[in-house]
Amino acid sequence: MAYALEHLAIVGVGLIGGSVARSLRAVGHVGRITGIGRDEQHLNKGRALGVVDDWTTDIRDGVADADAVLVSVPMGAYDSVFAALAGALPERAVLTDAGSTKQHAVETARRHLHEGELARFVPAHPIAGTEHSGVEASLASLFHGRLCVLTPMEQSTPEAVATVAAMWQATGSEVQTMTAAEHDDFLAAVSHLPHLLAFALVDAVRKMGDAQHDPFRFAAGGFRDFTRIASSSPEMWRDIALVNRRSVLAKLDALEVELAELRSALEAGDGQRLLDVFEAARSARERWLAGHGGSL
Amino acid sequence: MAYALEHLAIVGVGLIGGSVARSLRAVGHVGRITGIGRDEQHLNKGRALGVVDDWTTDIRDGVADADAVLVSVPMGAYDSVFAALAGALPERAVLTDAGSTKQHAVETARRHLHEGELARFVPAHPIAGTEHSGVEASLASLFHGRLCVLTPMEQSTPEAVATVAAMWQATGSEVQTMTAAEHDDFLAAVSHLPHLLAFALVDAVRKMGDAQHDPFRFAAGGFRDFTRIASSSPEMWRDIALVNRRSVLAKLDALEVELAELRSALEAGDGQRLLDVFEAARSARERWLAGHGGSL
Repeated sequence: MAYALEHLAIVGVGLIGGSVARSLRAVGHVGRITGIGRDEQHLNKGRALGVVDDWTTDIRDGVADADAVLVSVPMGAYDSVFAALAGALPERAVLTDAGSTKQHAVETARRHLHEGELARFVPAHPIAGTEHSGVEASLASLFHGRLCVLTPMEQSTPEAVATVAAMWQATGSEVQTMTAAEHDDFLAAVSHLPHLLAFALVDAVRKMGDAQHDPFRFAAGGFRDFTRIASSSPEMWRDIALVNRRSVLAKLDALEVELAELRSALEAGDGQRLLDVFEAARSARERWLAGHGGSL
Repeated sequence: MAYALEHLAIVGVGLIGGSVARSLRAVGHVGRITGIGRDEQHLNKGRALGVVDDWTTDIRDGVADADAVLVSVPMGAYDSVFAALAGALPERAVLTDAGSTKQHAVETARRHLHEGELARFVPAHPIAGTEHSGVEASLASLFHGRLCVLTPMEQSTPEAVATVAAMWQATGSEVQTMTAAEHDDFLAAVSHLPHLLAFALVDAVRKMGDAQHDPFRFAAGGFRDFTRIASSSPEMWRDIALVNRRSVLAKLDALEVELAELRSALEAGDGQRLLDVFEAARSARERWLAGHGGSL
């Protein structure tokens, strides 16, 4: 039996890498899967769970025989991973990644990869996740019905794009193509900026505390949900915010325009202007929930 | 059998009013409960559910025989309810409310109630709720382990404070006393401002949309949780934001200081400063979840 991919190497076998492995295996898209990472115990767990067939801590060894390589590591590890991949990608292999900021992925690849390797790199971002992390949380169904954005390089060959698109489709994702800048702009708005806001709000509340009162004692379910993302990894969000800071700053500007409008309406006691914003937001959210957002 | 309260009149039999009725009945704290409202069908439903024993649409009639009156209506209805109560509160009756902005409740009471009535008014805010509303969503357990803030007036008599505190304790709440201004400040930080932020962010995202791309398509579970409160009632939050606007504007100022710090760290590419804020926020939230927040 011929597989669409004979041998997939996955650098970083966590929630995302593990779920790609499980989902591709579930539909028979891939023959053999090699896990690549730094933590031997973690990689052994991936093999015990049947997520990978074998593993190595050496990137160049791990990809030597692959026809597809997936990089699914935190943004902070991109530089060292792409440096190790440079000159090691087999000629027949395509390369993709799963990072949440695409301009940074592209810049890092440009800095390290050889010309012919760049042509086989097709950056991707599967927009999915759970609050859990690690290979033990990985799921074959994680990408089902979710969006996976591809942001091909100018030099990406049509064959590489087709192979990578087919792989992400086989995970159950709905694949959409756009520029890295467009992607980063949208993600800054719906993900990166909200994380910054949640961290900022919790920190502002923390600073209100004194010996007499614990400000968090006044919080209820709305606060818990609003701040859930402030329990995310500080290191991971520092890295994402830094590498996508142009888009994050632009979206912070857009939010400041909204906040200035609300401030001015509050100062003027203008209930109608508040209501207009609140109603437009509520309707937009309800439309989203009635469509794609409803399946989250 | 003697009840702590022989006859409780509840103006506004929704989620909160209905849950007070159910919880007090469950522990035998109250004999008879009269529901007061404007919607006869809704009041009939409250009686059918056993939440109230009888009902009327006339406030003055409804409180005539009561020894305790609870106002649990939206902030936008306070003016008309307190106007109707003025001169109608029986001499033996205490008065409390459940509104989420206490300075406004106090100001409204001062504007309408007679001197002797003011002395028996003990403003309260039970910090509890669900995403559902209406008497059909009311629960005897809604207040169990939750905080209920009392903000007595200067003229509130010790007897009135004791009677009202005992009533809220009987609902299962943990009662804490402070000034109305302190309460409004904390609530602005953990509830009112987050609602404004959620509405503002969703509206900013909505404005990014064009014919080609739906920005909400890029959103995942983090966005859904962060913006859940942007599906709340626009009218209710307009009213709360307006009546508590001094505190909300002060907390918006505090948040802007945090955002300016994050902006400056982003512009400087200073990962350590980002990490300091993110880690302080995450630790504070985790401490909260390990304590009171964990039972939400």
